[in-house]
Amino acid sequence: MINKKTVILLISSPDKEGLVYKITEFIFHHKGNLLHAEQHIDKETNYFFMRLEFEISDNTYDKQSLLVDLEPIKKQYDMSIELYFKENKQNVAIFTSITEHCLYDLLIKNKSGELDFNPCCIISNHQNNENIAEHFNVPFHHIPVMPEYKKEAEESQLRILGEYNVDLIVLARYMQILSPEFISCYPQKIINVHHSFLPAFVGANPYNQAYQRGVKIIGATSHYTTNTLDEGPIIEQKVVRVSHKDSLEGFIRKGKELEKQVLSQAVNKHTQKKVLVFENKTVVFD
Amino acid sequence: MINKKTVILLISSPDKEGLVYKITEFIFHHKGNLLHAEQHIDKETNYFFMRLEFEISDNTYDKQSLLVDLEPIKKQYDMSIELYFKENKQNVAIFTSITEHCLYDLLIKNKSGELDFNPCCIISNHQNNENIAEHFNVPFHHIPVMPEYKKEAEESQLRILGEYNVDLIVLARYMQILSPEFISCYPQKIINVHHSFLPAFVGANPYNQAYQRGVKIIGATSHYTTNTLDEGPIIEQKVVRVSHKDSLEGFIRKGKELEKQVLSQAVNKHTQKKVLVFENKTVVFD
Amino acid sequence: MINKKTVILLISSPDKEGLVYKITEFIFHHKGNLLHAEQHIDKETNYFFMRLEFEISDNTYDKQSLLVDLEPIKKQYDMSIELYFKENKQNVAIFTSITEHCLYDLLIKNKSGELDFNPCCIISNHQNNENIAEHFNVPFHHIPVMPEYKKEAEESQLRILGEYNVDLIVLARYMQILSPEFISCYPQKIINVHHSFLPAFVGANPYNQAYQRGVKIIGATSHYTTNTLDEGPIIEQKVVRVSHKDSLEGFIRKGKELEKQVLSQAVNKHTQKKVLVFENKTVVFD
Amino acid sequence: MINKKTVILLISSPDKEGLVYKITEFIFHHKGNLLHAEQHIDKETNYFFMRLEFEISDNTYDKQSLLVDLEPIKKQYDMSIELYFKENKQNVAIFTSITEHCLYDLLIKNKSGELDFNPCCIISNHQNNENIAEHFNVPFHHIPVMPEYKKEAEESQLRILGEYNVDLIVLARYMQILSPEFISCYPQKIINVHHSFLPAFVGANPYNQAYQRGVKIIGATSHYTTNTLDEGPIIEQKVVRVSHKDSLEGFIRKGKELEKQVLSQAVNKHTQKKVLVFENKTVVFD
Repeated sequence: MINKKTVILLISSPDKEGLVYKITEFIFHHKGNLLHAEQHIDKETNYFFMRLEFEISDNTYDKQSLLVDLEPIKKQYDMSIELYFKENKQNVAIFTSITEHCLYDLLIKNKSGELDFNPCCIISNHQNNENIAEHFNVPFHHIPVMPEYKKEAEESQLRILGEYNVDLIVLARYMQILSPEFISCYPQKIINVHHSFLPAFVGANPYNQAYQRGVKIIGATSHYTTNTLDEGPIIEQKVVRVSHKDSLEGFIRKGKELEKQVLSQAVNKHTQKKVLVFENKTVVFD
Repeated sequence: MINKKTVILLISSPDKEGLVYKITEFIFHHKGNLLHAEQHIDKETNYFFMRLEFEISDNTYDKQSLLVDLEPIKKQYDMSIELYFKENKQNVAIFTSITEHCLYDLLIKNKSGELDFNPCCIISNHQNNENIAEHFNVPFHHIPVMPEYKKEAEESQLRILGEYNVDLIVLARYMQILSPEFISCYPQKIINVHHSFLPAFVGANPYNQAYQRGVKIIGATSHYTTNTLDEGPIIEQKVVRVSHKDSLEGFIRKGKELEKQVLSQAVNKHTQKKVLVFENKTVVFD
Repeated sequence: MINKKTVILLISSPDKEGLVYKITEFIFHHKGNLLHAEQHIDKETNYFFMRLEFEISDNTYDKQSLLVDLEPIKKQYDMSIELYFKENKQNVAIFTSITEHCLYDLLIKNKSGELDFNPCCIISNHQNNENIAEHFNVPFHHIPVMPEYKKEAEESQLRILGEYNVDLIVLARYMQILSPEFISCYPQKIINVHHSFLPAFVGANPYNQAYQRGVKIIGATSHYTTNTLDEGPIIEQKVVRVSHKDSLEGFIRKGKELEKQVLSQAVNKHTQKKVLVFENKTVVFD
Repeated sequence: MINKKTVILLISSPDKEGLVYKITEFIFHHKGNLLHAEQHIDKETNYFFMRLEFEISDNTYDKQSLLVDLEPIKKQYDMSIELYFKENKQNVAIFTSITEHCLYDLLIKNKSGELDFNPCCIISNHQNNENIAEHFNVPFHHIPVMPEYKKEAEESQLRILGEYNVDLIVLARYMQILSPEFISCYPQKIINVHHSFLPAFVGANPYNQAYQRGVKIIGATSHYTTNTLDEGPIIEQKVVRVSHKDSLEGFIRKGKELEKQVLSQAVNKHTQKKVLVFENKTVVFD
């Protein structure tokens, strides 16, 4: 029996004739077996996006040789390319504060296989979730964030992230705003959950804003963190009906379900390499 | 056999002990048979809202005598009261411009009995929907609205509304902004549909705004028109999922389904007297 | 300051004039302050259902004296009555097998206050969830259920339930069928979750049945357990879209979210005494 | 300027290496410009499905020459192939009985461009919808269906369908069961709407069945008609929440919205050639 490995190939480029042909020819000539392919053309900008999964035998090509062989097509079509081996799990750091529902949800789903990442550490500005980290056997780092020592706190965080060789940071209701310097170290690698249906109710206390406005539906949004608060590319949104019968506490209780779902969905899509960012939007493949 | 008529009683007041007792006592002593009762207490303001439906025999009390008999309770509890006979259909005027889906939807549902109002007229600043009016046998009034003659146009509209003794104006994708003077003639009696999930994307071209922002869910909102654009009390909202695969035209197509639903739902609730406005919010009973 | 306690009163009876009046008079005369009231009349059978919450001062009436005082109305209107003090938490036993997502969900939500019961014990026919019980400090009882010793196993279960004075049994993906004898000990006090949109796909492997049928939506259902498999009164249902892109594993993964939600929602409604069973249906108040 | 035409190519075949490569090579060598491509592999059966849209210049190839050129690939990969020119609208016959909401919905959406078919005729066993046909300028054929003359009625229907060269029959709440002989003339070309969430509540009066069972969600299903009642391949399903507060009439009213949506969605997908039937399931591309 020949061992196989699965390659994930992400492509963005201006749309031109023959693109899919050239890519599938490449796979065919490398004796790859195409498992999945999804593509999208943005009609406004005429930009092309593709995600392919294909199997190759384990000992034929490594990442470097595949990238070298892709170079001519890449040049010809002016492509951006990302290439992963599916077998390599992503290293994920989870940031939390006091609330625990998103943290629990990510760790339970990862334990049961619904999510599939390597939870390398939990970093929190509060101590209280340490016992959850212990329950799931994930290293816990308590780094208080005092306003006057925020820079030092972020330096400690970055050092820890570096030690774990982190691929993705998940802000699981982490109640601190990250500095532009911090964000620039992990571009499009920080996923946040905002507890509103963005762009409605940016900023603080979105449930209270929604309650005061008398909306009939509330939502939650997961997105990549950028320097503009709550304005990064949206990955997933979910909503639930509310009515005059729901108190503010009812809004919060219902919203917690949404927060868990949009955040775990975003982590799932990102770690499976199904999200392509384009300007301030995302292409999220199925 | 004794003929019955059904009374709808709407009450708003500060919450006090004995309110429901006193009201149901009133009904009991008037030999009324309670069919439905719904109530709500707003915990922030301690305000009480109630809607009751009860049957009385046809020849015992008219509206005036019931209101007189309610006067002592009304005073004791500092109530606002509205009283209707269910058998009296509401007179509804529909305002349209060019698009026809909401107009069709209201008229079809009213014809089939899903809605239950008296469609007394259609007023439009365009001619094209006249054949729809004819198909459903509703008088059609074409009143062009030129920017420089807007005041005159509104005067014509108001005159027509007065002739038909209109109880409710429904803006079925009517693309003109009404003046404060016009609105003040029909307070909480003008229902608009906005093609976004308010408060996101107020103003013009909400689908395009949503498309540019890259949201994953779009919505539509029906609300009472007030002097502040798109900020009146929300009656109903609905949403639908979109993705990168949906073009702007796709957003619009999906949104049209929502617009019809939130508008007809609002008309249904309003004409059944199930909406109570409270500050800038609504209590919408089932 | 006078201490208050909150009374929950559930009423079912044939509909007759004056019912609400008499009940609210009762509350008024007992110096109760009505907090919530919801009612429903089943038009087919002309049956009346009501749930009231009212505050009374702590030292005036106990449960027994209230029930005695209600006796005349109860007789006059042929009522079934249940009366609870809201402050008394319900004793809940959770039954599990191997899967853990529903168990986790119930315990996390109870810890955070979204649910509000006394988790008196976890009973499982498998050992693997013991560490979850420990994490949440809930007693764990491992009772294997061998087909040939099922009677003995149920006797052990019933003995434990009796010791904890259990009010409600929650089957959190418990993969054993309970005997009629067992069920008869806890009528309308056993809540099950079935992983399909009942009445579609009763019995074993509902996700596989749904997958084979090629449905475009899957669901989950929480219901009271009766002697007829998957046919008890439905408390809550939720659904999610699927497509040809979802594998059977995808169905299962999406379904797990639904199972958690319908089960915790049912537990929430039941422990708040908001569910009234009527023939094989439920009235679930908001 | 060169005129272009758009080709839609549907492929089903056992999955083999190089499939996508060979197809896109074919398009490339025919100077086609790929606009859309979607594919799916059924993992259980290892079957491959693909839908491609590509532009070619108007005067280079006709349908016949393209099919001839595809023959070698077709043979090599054991493919089923369908090929359409997007510019050719599908001829659709709508069958109705008394209810009108689905009929209205299809014709309004087609008029406004949301649907895009050629409505060649309406066939009804009742006279009442004739004025709707007139309003939309569609030929109306009244063919009563008496139980004892059903064969003759179907012969009349088939003759009319033949005259209009009908591509698709849409049963818009047509309340007659078609004979196997009739169905065999239009295999996978008859779309029905069933007013339940199939496979729950097959057969007559599904809303009443749902009402009696006390479900909390109702649905509607569009599917291809086969000889087994309500068991054909499902194209689309939608659902809406109900509660004890909804009467049977409420179920019906809410369900009508769903019926319209699932039926028009199915017609949209079918006429755009986005549905592939596989055993008793469908692949519905976006």
